[in-house]
Amino acid sequence: MKLLIKNALLDGEAKDLFIDGKFITRIGTNLAVEAERTIDASGKAVIPGFVNMHSHAPMTLFRGFGDDMPLMKWLQERIWPHEAKLTRTDIYWGTKLACLEMIKSGTTTFADMYFNMRGIADAVTEMGLRVLLGDTNIDNFDPQLTEKAKEHTKKVFKLVQENYGERIQMSVAPHAIYTVSGELLQWLNNFSREHGLLMQMHVAETEGEVRDSVKNFGLSPVRYLYKLGLLSPRLIIAHGLHVDEDEIRMLADHNVKVVHNPASNMKLASGGKFKFVEMKKAGVTVGLGTDGCASSNNLDMIEVMRYATFLGKVWRHDPEALKADEMLEAATCAGAKMLGLKAGYIREGYLADLSLVDMHSAAFTPNFNFVSNLVYAANGSCIDTVICNGQVLMENRVVKGEDEILEKAAECAYNLVRR
Amino acid sequence: MKLLIKNALLDGEAKDLFIDGKFITRIGTNLAVEAERTIDASGKAVIPGFVNMHSHAPMTLFRGFGDDMPLMKWLQERIWPHEAKLTRTDIYWGTKLACLEMIKSGTTTFADMYFNMRGIADAVTEMGLRVLLGDTNIDNFDPQLTEKAKEHTKKVFKLVQENYGERIQMSVAPHAIYTVSGELLQWLNNFSREHGLLMQMHVAETEGEVRDSVKNFGLSPVRYLYKLGLLSPRLIIAHGLHVDEDEIRMLADHNVKVVHNPASNMKLASGGKFKFVEMKKAGVTVGLGTDGCASSNNLDMIEVMRYATFLGKVWRHDPEALKADEMLEAATCAGAKMLGLKAGYIREGYLADLSLVDMHSAAFTPNFNFVSNLVYAANGSCIDTVICNGQVLMENRVVKGEDEILEKAAECAYNLVRR
Repeated sequence: MKLLIKNALLDGEAKDLFIDGKFITRIGTNLAVEAERTIDASGKAVIPGFVNMHSHAPMTLFRGFGDDMPLMKWLQERIWPHEAKLTRTDIYWGTKLACLEMIKSGTTTFADMYFNMRGIADAVTEMGLRVLLGDTNIDNFDPQLTEKAKEHTKKVFKLVQENYGERIQMSVAPHAIYTVSGELLQWLNNFSREHGLLMQMHVAETEGEVRDSVKNFGLSPVRYLYKLGLLSPRLIIAHGLHVDEDEIRMLADHNVKVVHNPASNMKLASGGKFKFVEMKKAGVTVGLGTDGCASSNNLDMIEVMRYATFLGKVWRHDPEALKADEMLEAATCAGAKMLGLKAGYIREGYLADLSLVDMHSAAFTPNFNFVSNLVYAANGSCIDTVICNGQVLMENRVVKGEDEILEKAAECAYNLVRR
Repeated sequence: MKLLIKNALLDGEAKDLFIDGKFITRIGTNLAVEAERTIDASGKAVIPGFVNMHSHAPMTLFRGFGDDMPLMKWLQERIWPHEAKLTRTDIYWGTKLACLEMIKSGTTTFADMYFNMRGIADAVTEMGLRVLLGDTNIDNFDPQLTEKAKEHTKKVFKLVQENYGERIQMSVAPHAIYTVSGELLQWLNNFSREHGLLMQMHVAETEGEVRDSVKNFGLSPVRYLYKLGLLSPRLIIAHGLHVDEDEIRMLADHNVKVVHNPASNMKLASGGKFKFVEMKKAGVTVGLGTDGCASSNNLDMIEVMRYATFLGKVWRHDPEALKADEMLEAATCAGAKMLGLKAGYIREGYLADLSLVDMHSAAFTPNFNFVSNLVYAANGSCIDTVICNGQVLMENRVVKGEDEILEKAAECAYNLVRR
């Protein structure tokens, strides 16, 4: 489709954007082009779609199901018993709800770790977003489960390759070093190298994980991964909260990517001192994520930008640290770069993954600094229109099928806990 | 006016609320009453209006005007030179913008510290909210300014008493111990006792303030106030971040109230370890505030509840600390109690200061726990209808005069920085 967006504010100036197929092909003023459809963006600003680099999409179904509980009690009593009962239909509607929520707050791409790839991929395909699927592997150091996981990974990889299109990218996703054996970690790493896949993993999320890693493997998590040969440009680690200076250098040396999840880290009390400044200085690409809705309860990347800067400023005692511009970059281009997407910028030749921000509200009044208002004052409700891969997913805050998604996802959630 | 709200979700059950004049007079099911107006609240929950206990309303005009800057540079180059040029018209429109923003996010009452009471009181009167006005005093330890401040306080008190109604409550508001002499502090305290006024003040906001207090007065801030005789049930301190255990006991002993402003504390890097749990345990009433929009950029009390709990959990390494229910209480009943208002609860005989929350959104899907969804997943945009003192200030997210307020406030802000 040929789509013309007229008068969108871009870097302080009203511009027209011409989208041909999935790319932004021209940006200018008063573009004389033939479009099949025109969107008037007067009073709205255009920004790249957010890239949410860590989530567990179907866990929207567990939103508010056991907050303010200690981690292990919550996992053992609330999450694990019910996760075991999730059907593909549950996964599908939970993911649809997540997609709806992401579209409504301006996210066009997300990286995910869960299970039942078909349910997730079907939902994302229909909703029009991009996803980095991660079929989460756990073998609990049981050799039989290790072999099963290998077979499963091969099967799922084939399934996704054969059945889904360009917006659905596959990755391998070992859960964490305390749930996945070194044998399986290395096998998955080889598999990812062989098939050119990215690898997602929770690393250094809690102090307990670091303590146990030293106890069990004689090394801190990043050093243990180095020893196993897992540090590579394909590796994307979620959290990376508890790492020392040498580990940051190791991550930089191997071009490992890191995803900061401030809301989850705060709510689960995992830690408040993410080393954003040190990592950036060392040359590590740092993106942002929400984590799943059972950890931090919503999928709003504007809030995540704000948490990241607020938390970074306060633990450093430095109001100048983690500026608004850096947050927007981390929430857009950094993620796009990790995924190898030509996205994250509003530029000719880049993918048409973008949002229009409605500035007719208190959050953008006055508008001395648009990015500052976006990061420090707004929330996801400022997003008016969302386009991904050249397709309009939301206009005037209306997403097709919203009512059905809310209803079906709630039904799945209530049935699930009764099962 | 007699107003009937039908089928609002209250503690998990659909109830009718009958509002006669400014009070909720009846709560029940299928109430047979004669109302002049009926609001169908099906699919919506009713909650008390938020009480924002610390703000500088007209500073909406400075939103985004100098973020990510060091405090003194920001004050000296951005804020103070422009504050000196504020006219009553600026203050009026800046306050209207603040009121609009507060109504849109469910706040019905706020405590404020600024100057030019007429501009603020006129705006609040028209917008229909309640306010605790604070005419901020600064004498910079200059005896001439001390005397001027006394005269000014008497004049302003008389002006407010004579010109404004019940929704506009006056207080005295010395800025802080580092800008107000002991002489003026004691005079203001006597004045507040004599006239039965509350007293608002910034106390123990930064480590620098504590250091200077010890250096200049030989005592930490709370101890210094104790020595001056200022600790009393009339005193409401904003921040109270850097206080020790003995000081918390002193605050409790004198029934001093404390207002926590987590967004401001994080963004300005004032400190991240507010002692909410210790204060509550000691018996201190703790409310929540946004601070002004030049400090934390928006006035959304739902976000403030979330920041307070997230920050409290993470520095304590305890995901069970500061539960969602406690946050809602701090954002509603605690503030109402500080102000002596029969509000903060949805109960018969209480003031009709309330909001209807639209639950038809991802944030409330599924709805296992309404308060959890409100505090952990929602934002101000979930507020559909706001009623204060029995008057409907917003319905279906429409506030009367919104466009004019946005336009006029922006105009004032842009003219101001050009002046």
